[in-house]
Amino acid sequence: MIIVLRSGESASEVEGLLSDAGAEYRRLVLYDRDLVVAWPERSVPAEKLTNHPAVEAVVKAPGAYQLSSRAWKPDDTKVSFGGAVFGGGYVSIIAGPCSAESREQVLETARHVKKAGAHALRGGCWKPRTSPYSFQGWGPKALEWMAEAREETGLPIVVEALSTDNVPLLEAKADCIQIGARNMQNTPLLRAVGKTGKPVLLKRGFGNTIDELLCSADYVMLEGCGSVILCERGIRSYERSTRFTFDISAIPVLKKKSHLPVIADPSHPAGDKSLVEPLALAALAAGADGLIVEVHAWPEKALSDSKQQLTPREFQELMEKARLLVEALGRRMP
Amino acid sequence: MIIVLRSGESASEVEGLLSDAGAEYRRLVLYDRDLVVAWPERSVPAEKLTNHPAVEAVVKAPGAYQLSSRAWKPDDTKVSFGGAVFGGGYVSIIAGPCSAESREQVLETARHVKKAGAHALRGGCWKPRTSPYSFQGWGPKALEWMAEAREETGLPIVVEALSTDNVPLLEAKADCIQIGARNMQNTPLLRAVGKTGKPVLLKRGFGNTIDELLCSADYVMLEGCGSVILCERGIRSYERSTRFTFDISAIPVLKKKSHLPVIADPSHPAGDKSLVEPLALAALAAGADGLIVEVHAWPEKALSDSKQQLTPREFQELMEKARLLVEALGRRMP
Amino acid sequence: MIIVLRSGESASEVEGLLSDAGAEYRRLVLYDRDLVVAWPERSVPAEKLTNHPAVEAVVKAPGAYQLSSRAWKPDDTKVSFGGAVFGGGYVSIIAGPCSAESREQVLETARHVKKAGAHALRGGCWKPRTSPYSFQGWGPKALEWMAEAREETGLPIVVEALSTDNVPLLEAKADCIQIGARNMQNTPLLRAVGKTGKPVLLKRGFGNTIDELLCSADYVMLEGCGSVILCERGIRSYERSTRFTFDISAIPVLKKKSHLPVIADPSHPAGDKSLVEPLALAALAAGADGLIVEVHAWPEKALSDSKQQLTPREFQELMEKARLLVEALGRRMP
Amino acid sequence: MIIVLRSGESASEVEGLLSDAGAEYRRLVLYDRDLVVAWPERSVPAEKLTNHPAVEAVVKAPGAYQLSSRAWKPDDTKVSFGGAVFGGGYVSIIAGPCSAESREQVLETARHVKKAGAHALRGGCWKPRTSPYSFQGWGPKALEWMAEAREETGLPIVVEALSTDNVPLLEAKADCIQIGARNMQNTPLLRAVGKTGKPVLLKRGFGNTIDELLCSADYVMLEGCGSVILCERGIRSYERSTRFTFDISAIPVLKKKSHLPVIADPSHPAGDKSLVEPLALAALAAGADGLIVEVHAWPEKALSDSKQQLTPREFQELMEKARLLVEALGRRMP
Repeated sequence: MIIVLRSGESASEVEGLLSDAGAEYRRLVLYDRDLVVAWPERSVPAEKLTNHPAVEAVVKAPGAYQLSSRAWKPDDTKVSFGGAVFGGGYVSIIAGPCSAESREQVLETARHVKKAGAHALRGGCWKPRTSPYSFQGWGPKALEWMAEAREETGLPIVVEALSTDNVPLLEAKADCIQIGARNMQNTPLLRAVGKTGKPVLLKRGFGNTIDELLCSADYVMLEGCGSVILCERGIRSYERSTRFTFDISAIPVLKKKSHLPVIADPSHPAGDKSLVEPLALAALAAGADGLIVEVHAWPEKALSDSKQQLTPREFQELMEKARLLVEALGRRMP
Repeated sequence: MIIVLRSGESASEVEGLLSDAGAEYRRLVLYDRDLVVAWPERSVPAEKLTNHPAVEAVVKAPGAYQLSSRAWKPDDTKVSFGGAVFGGGYVSIIAGPCSAESREQVLETARHVKKAGAHALRGGCWKPRTSPYSFQGWGPKALEWMAEAREETGLPIVVEALSTDNVPLLEAKADCIQIGARNMQNTPLLRAVGKTGKPVLLKRGFGNTIDELLCSADYVMLEGCGSVILCERGIRSYERSTRFTFDISAIPVLKKKSHLPVIADPSHPAGDKSLVEPLALAALAAGADGLIVEVHAWPEKALSDSKQQLTPREFQELMEKARLLVEALGRRMP
Repeated sequence: MIIVLRSGESASEVEGLLSDAGAEYRRLVLYDRDLVVAWPERSVPAEKLTNHPAVEAVVKAPGAYQLSSRAWKPDDTKVSFGGAVFGGGYVSIIAGPCSAESREQVLETARHVKKAGAHALRGGCWKPRTSPYSFQGWGPKALEWMAEAREETGLPIVVEALSTDNVPLLEAKADCIQIGARNMQNTPLLRAVGKTGKPVLLKRGFGNTIDELLCSADYVMLEGCGSVILCERGIRSYERSTRFTFDISAIPVLKKKSHLPVIADPSHPAGDKSLVEPLALAALAAGADGLIVEVHAWPEKALSDSKQQLTPREFQELMEKARLLVEALGRRMP
Repeated sequence: MIIVLRSGESASEVEGLLSDAGAEYRRLVLYDRDLVVAWPERSVPAEKLTNHPAVEAVVKAPGAYQLSSRAWKPDDTKVSFGGAVFGGGYVSIIAGPCSAESREQVLETARHVKKAGAHALRGGCWKPRTSPYSFQGWGPKALEWMAEAREETGLPIVVEALSTDNVPLLEAKADCIQIGARNMQNTPLLRAVGKTGKPVLLKRGFGNTIDELLCSADYVMLEGCGSVILCERGIRSYERSTRFTFDISAIPVLKKKSHLPVIADPSHPAGDKSLVEPLALAALAAGADGLIVEVHAWPEKALSDSKQQLTPREFQELMEKARLLVEALGRRMP
């Protein structure tokens, strides 16, 4: 449950009531509001709290997630970093290679996506791979290339954390830390990334529900981080003509349940670049606040996911159509 | 395999070669082309046929479907009836109630959707229901109401065939016969509807693959019917926040594999009307050649699917956005 | 709702109450009990009926199915034909080819499965096939071969109805009529087969839920047929190492929800014969009342499903283990 | 690829060949065999290696996994700890509470399962929970209770690692370390647990394929750990009458693809204790080398998963039937 405190009021009596009742709680400041999050529900003395003069509201969001719910925050949350803005009517595009493979590849791709109008650069430095015999990423060295690309192009960088060991370096160097699909329920990692306070891009696991994604957002937010971007990237189903089944409905469902911005990754479900553009446009038409798209200066040489990465020219065409569509539907790119 | 004959040439020698080789075959005229479809592949003397003077081309489409494949017909097929046009750059909207429940409901809904710009009227007369204790439709009487609505509004009517028994009446009265999701692999029904030669709206089964949908289209087309419209309407997955998982990728995948027009039903996967508009717009952005949307003059009184049917006003808003989006992306409504 | 009448009482007053209340109803005799099934629930005057002297009980089963529910019939239903017995502690095995391909193949396979201890013979005469270019079965001719095999071996025969057109012939010649997975929701076919009163083997659709299977059983039973055998044969999931995902849990779940016997088809989910034995034994251990197994005298020559059909020797080994297991767990084969 | 060295031969020349060819490699001793695992495949000079006098065999297993494949090790691997033996004809049962909730609960449950014939004790100390507001486990304190239960009963203990931080303590105190479903692709955790060399119980993720499970086993084995037990515990599908769909086919498929022992967790897919026994017996009939079952001295008081935990009496009945079935099918419990 979320206890919203009146501005300027002390939380100490509220904390006392919760302690006495045997509830666990955490104090937080999120979006300039003073909050106390308390659980389990049965231990929270809701009536006493509601009537306490320091308390503005006591909210029990439906479902197992609380902080990410619209129940206590009806307005859209806007997340921004380095010129990219997601949510609240703004649509931004993150683009770049699946893996940061070489200094030259990162810089060249960054120049192209910047020119086409992208708002942020992606590039994997530590890669979560199904097989231990697949390319695992170049690690800290790759992160340096990404930082250099930011210097040159001005694009903020989004990099995935594979383990809690990566977090300090990402906190120092990245503008936004990504949690990948396989780690969506890696709760120690969610907590560690949340503690940095940096913007977090949280991808839905391919076997996870929408409600589980929101619970994972709560793990991050409970550490005091309000800048969480949710990302739909395809789920598993029986259909085999695409790599994953892109759950387009997740976009409006998430926007309805949560105040957080929602973006889409059209590259991973497609598995084939001819499908990236239709899925990207569909996601924007369904209300997505942005996209994260794989683009590679030379896709045919890619060390991972070579079939689904766009060429710079294909990305430019996508950007043009995306802009037309976003404006036709009354939103805008920064 | 598809053997395309040269214009004006006799098929008799080709048929002789196939008979001698022990192949089964069927002669067809589709899209003004003379065809012989022959199977199984191993029995077709492809080389002899290719070199025969009456033969223009011998095509083996990849996969188990042949007639619905783009392999032998690279251009888009356009299907039209009563002013509605699907495919080849045209987008049309079919709207109306889940079930035709009363004369008044059908007529009133028809007037509203006509005014909002719909191109055809839907309305179930025989309803495929999971439980024998649910409303099963008003049958021939309901078809009369639909026909009356056509008289008044000029909208062509799309009505589902539940069994081969319904086909003669639908052949006489409907402009387009729908095969519902549960009947996608009801092969006697597919053949019976194909024999009428009327336009057919073929919905994907909720447990069926894209390739299976195309095989079912082949059952219809093999009876000489070229006017088949494919329809994505959501599949089953583990995600429970929507009634079905709308497989948006099916739209570009079908457009790539097949020359047939592809439309989307956003109402059934949504299961809730707040999701209908985002799914509808997403489908159009992904390249759908049309929509079939549930609209009810008084949704709260509906005998089936009351939660997912739009009010006339909601439908009008959807039509306005759909038109903007379709035009922004360079296609048009008739 | 199910209204169970007292033995020997007239239904006329009960019918009058239902008519007056605007409910639909059907009179039935099932398992020697006089029943009136009435719907929709909101129109049934339950209180009046409960207190009526002709009424023994008024039962509203949870869920959308009624007649197949254990709610009104707590004891196991036993279905038998020609020496095979399913349910109530009895386990029987149906075996035979996927398709009845030739007189010789049917007779030879029948002799083998009889010798190994099978209780009934299967063999497809009309085949529901995904593609119109696949083998569609030999029809009435194949049914003659099956009948001849029954003459010779004494095994009763189980044959699938593909369409309502097949039903009269199957009624005349088959001992048990199968409804295949693709037709589980073909409601005209369910009704037509139910009207024959013959034992029905109803397979679960690969995209259907357990509750939907029970609703389909109700369609059959509502025509007065109490001899329905339910069959789990695998559902669709994302896992690709088997043809379908055998939903073993369906067996105990169905046994809990329904009084009808439940059997398993281990051949279709396996898709590969090395998996047939483990799945068959698992099904029996989970409580299945029988099996339907594909066996072919010469599997390598089969016209359909050649990889999943057992040889006679493999089937004999399976029968020996199955018998051991069934007896170890306290049930028996007739 | 796996390069099996001849007994007593030096690996140095093999390593030299791999280095020269630009391959990555790891030396290992597994099951008393000297191995060099090398990748990527295209960089491994297979022909040179095959002909090298120090090399006994060069094996490329089909698929992305290598060490867990039967391709290089056709015989069953047997994993044992503290009297429990899994594989090679032996079946063992791990039982205990979902969470270790109190000293009394752990000790009392341990006494019961020991008496009923269980071979090892389970009990969660750090719990991976979907929501941050659910009970997260008592941590090190709970591990002490588990260790005390081992002292008293002699049962070895199986405890889940939630993060790499837990690994040192588990290495010191547990007999077998579990990797839970949500962490199946947490590669840093897989590597950390593999480094301990202790027996590992690796559960399949509920959205993961069988091949991905084997790739994860390879992550563990590549650190030198050969004692990996695979565990099927249910996957996600559209069917909602069980918590997960227990993929019974995974058991024979894994046994065919891999030499590692395979066990089943019937409690999590069931979600309801009435289904635990049929699923457990089915798993054993399908060839499982053991079970891990949730048992709680007082299930109604459980802090997690209270509906799916067996009472001691229910567990004892299950053990009796399990023993009968295992022996009927020619295997044995230690």
